[in-house]
Amino acid sequence: MTEIEKVCKNARDSAIELSNLNSNKKNKMLNLIIDVIKNNAGEILSANKIDVINAQKNNMPTHFIDRLTLNQKRLDGIIEGIKNVISLSDPIGEVMETFTPKNGLKITKKRVPVGVIGVIYEARPNVTFDVIALTIKSGNCVVLRGGSDTINSNKKIVGLIKEAFKNNGFNPEYIQLLIDTTREGVLELMKLNKYIDLLIPRGGKSLIESVVKNSTVPVIETGSGNCHVYVHKDADLDMALKILINAKCARVSVCNAAESLLVDKEIAQKFLKTAKAELEKNNVKILGCKETIKIINCQKATDEDFYTEFDDYIISVKVVESLTGAIAHINKYGTKHSDCIVTNDKAAAKEFFNNIDSAAVYHNASTYFTDGFQFGFGAEIGISTQKIHARGPMGLKELTSYKYIVEGNGNIRV
Amino acid sequence: MTEIEKVCKNARDSAIELSNLNSNKKNKMLNLIIDVIKNNAGEILSANKIDVINAQKNNMPTHFIDRLTLNQKRLDGIIEGIKNVISLSDPIGEVMETFTPKNGLKITKKRVPVGVIGVIYEARPNVTFDVIALTIKSGNCVVLRGGSDTINSNKKIVGLIKEAFKNNGFNPEYIQLLIDTTREGVLELMKLNKYIDLLIPRGGKSLIESVVKNSTVPVIETGSGNCHVYVHKDADLDMALKILINAKCARVSVCNAAESLLVDKEIAQKFLKTAKAELEKNNVKILGCKETIKIINCQKATDEDFYTEFDDYIISVKVVESLTGAIAHINKYGTKHSDCIVTNDKAAAKEFFNNIDSAAVYHNASTYFTDGFQFGFGAEIGISTQKIHARGPMGLKELTSYKYIVEGNGNIRV
Repeated sequence: MTEIEKVCKNARDSAIELSNLNSNKKNKMLNLIIDVIKNNAGEILSANKIDVINAQKNNMPTHFIDRLTLNQKRLDGIIEGIKNVISLSDPIGEVMETFTPKNGLKITKKRVPVGVIGVIYEARPNVTFDVIALTIKSGNCVVLRGGSDTINSNKKIVGLIKEAFKNNGFNPEYIQLLIDTTREGVLELMKLNKYIDLLIPRGGKSLIESVVKNSTVPVIETGSGNCHVYVHKDADLDMALKILINAKCARVSVCNAAESLLVDKEIAQKFLKTAKAELEKNNVKILGCKETIKIINCQKATDEDFYTEFDDYIISVKVVESLTGAIAHINKYGTKHSDCIVTNDKAAAKEFFNNIDSAAVYHNASTYFTDGFQFGFGAEIGISTQKIHARGPMGLKELTSYKYIVEGNGNIRV
Repeated sequence: MTEIEKVCKNARDSAIELSNLNSNKKNKMLNLIIDVIKNNAGEILSANKIDVINAQKNNMPTHFIDRLTLNQKRLDGIIEGIKNVISLSDPIGEVMETFTPKNGLKITKKRVPVGVIGVIYEARPNVTFDVIALTIKSGNCVVLRGGSDTINSNKKIVGLIKEAFKNNGFNPEYIQLLIDTTREGVLELMKLNKYIDLLIPRGGKSLIESVVKNSTVPVIETGSGNCHVYVHKDADLDMALKILINAKCARVSVCNAAESLLVDKEIAQKFLKTAKAELEKNNVKILGCKETIKIINCQKATDEDFYTEFDDYIISVKVVESLTGAIAHINKYGTKHSDCIVTNDKAAAKEFFNNIDSAAVYHNASTYFTDGFQFGFGAEIGISTQKIHARGPMGLKELTSYKYIVEGNGNIRV
């Protein structure tokens, strides 16, 4: 048995025990994590410092180092996040349905944890805390596979938490960290169906594509968001502008940011001029279709641009003939994440809802709302862009499965 | 674009249209399928005859030819099945939840079809009808990839249905049959994430393993069932015997059949002797553990035997120390399908329920009940043994996903 197998088997072997812990015990574990952060902030920050210095030596880009860096303020934020997860209601044990078919059996459909969840992520040590809090609260053992650049932070964080668990009578094996951060190691992890029930990749496009391509363990694909704001001919144009600027500019690097603006032909002349002024005030570069460049001065968009999630101060713009054209465009170029129509025509909104095949479809609101916190889930482990198991923001409930409990009196099937 | 891509793209391009059809229209399509069978039975049976003759020429085994063969009685059974699906309530459009988070948005979680479902199966033309009925009713386009040995039957069946759809104003593209039944073809299908939302393999172990291994499209693993009957020391032994014989012998080739008997040490002496007599009356061969062969005369079971789904008149038998031992054994050797405890001790049953990590856990009832019809789902497309998306019998509801419909009044996220 390889090291990675051993680590994953430890999680598997502890999964049923954790699945049976009540909410009080699970919350107690989360409180221990808060204590760990409070009592060992210095140690955690020192370990993190090593990763940061190494990243600087390796000339990693500024935004990479920013995401890698922990400081007291960020630790305080992490504590708030864990407190929030503690306050959430525990989905485990919920009786989802009871029914008695003709055969007379009493069947109870009960919510249970998924079991063992593997999370593959990049150099963000805050994710280590988030994922542990969410998986423990939902009764799942977790196998963490963070990026190599953050291994010192992760070893310290996970080591301290496991120690605190052990010292307080909790099984430290609920949480597993893969020390092997090689490509071979992650490929091995992705084939361990025997031990892992679900893999969630969190990170950039290439990470997610690699997991989808190589994993035999079920995967939930997350985070790819080529989101659209469509301004219908019957839109309130002031509202449309406000929504566009929020969806595009509030935070350009996130998956729920708008990457593309669609405008009905009838109002394109009027709307695109104000939109251009406002977008440029926010330093957003416009890539326009053939019709767009007739109206405003901007660079020509290629077909590829309409497929692109820029995650940057860039937006593609297309003038469409009508609602039908907008729907066809979004379903062709989008990533089924979040898309918005701005209109005062309720029938148009309904047609948009029915025909856009995305996790979240918006009417007169910004796509930037697609988020576990904004949806009231209290937390999220990611945003699913596939249609299996969970769609959109994934909170605690989305980390669960169910089992059927069947009670009889000697029933046999004839 | 290859032929297979074209076929799958046709399904993708028709998926939203089908997702918006109301129940009446979908039921009308199912009625058209019934008419097709009634009006073209001769043609269907002739096409099937070609497959059967070819299979005979290729010296395929009797049970293979049996499953491949259609006749009037089987067609009548298929019609009854489709009528049953027509009578089931339509899950699509159900409002699963509505909520308004602090940000004031009105969010509706609405049940929608998965989209495009690919089904990979073996030489069973009845599955072609089952799958079409279930996918159409649940609003999903389907890509059928049946075995090469049944291609004449499938071409005829799908051709006639598509023609009936076309003649009655329904889009024939909702249903797609892959004519290419080569290994290369199925490998290509398994990589078409762009067009396929979900792949369901139906068939033997090697088929399912190959799909899990090779598919980048999300897969629901089905049908592998190494099910246990555990006779606890406080069991009613007459009841235990009745359940054991039903679970083992009613139909040995199905996934919900018992493959292994566990008996508490305290009652082993007494129970195993009657069990042996009854099993042997039903032509079941016993493979026993070290303790078992001290009590009854039988062949010795290897460790591998306890992992084996025999699908045959064979059962492995193990004497266990206690409930804890039984739980450990089942979670180690089982396939998380269906497992049963026979006992009059309610606390023992509860411990069994909490600690057995299977889709269906039984108390005093036969594992042979794990089935969509028996569970009251009216129909099933398979029995999931994974924990993601759906677990246990999968009916119409399990072929659905959801979307969030978000309504605002110009809301932006601050």
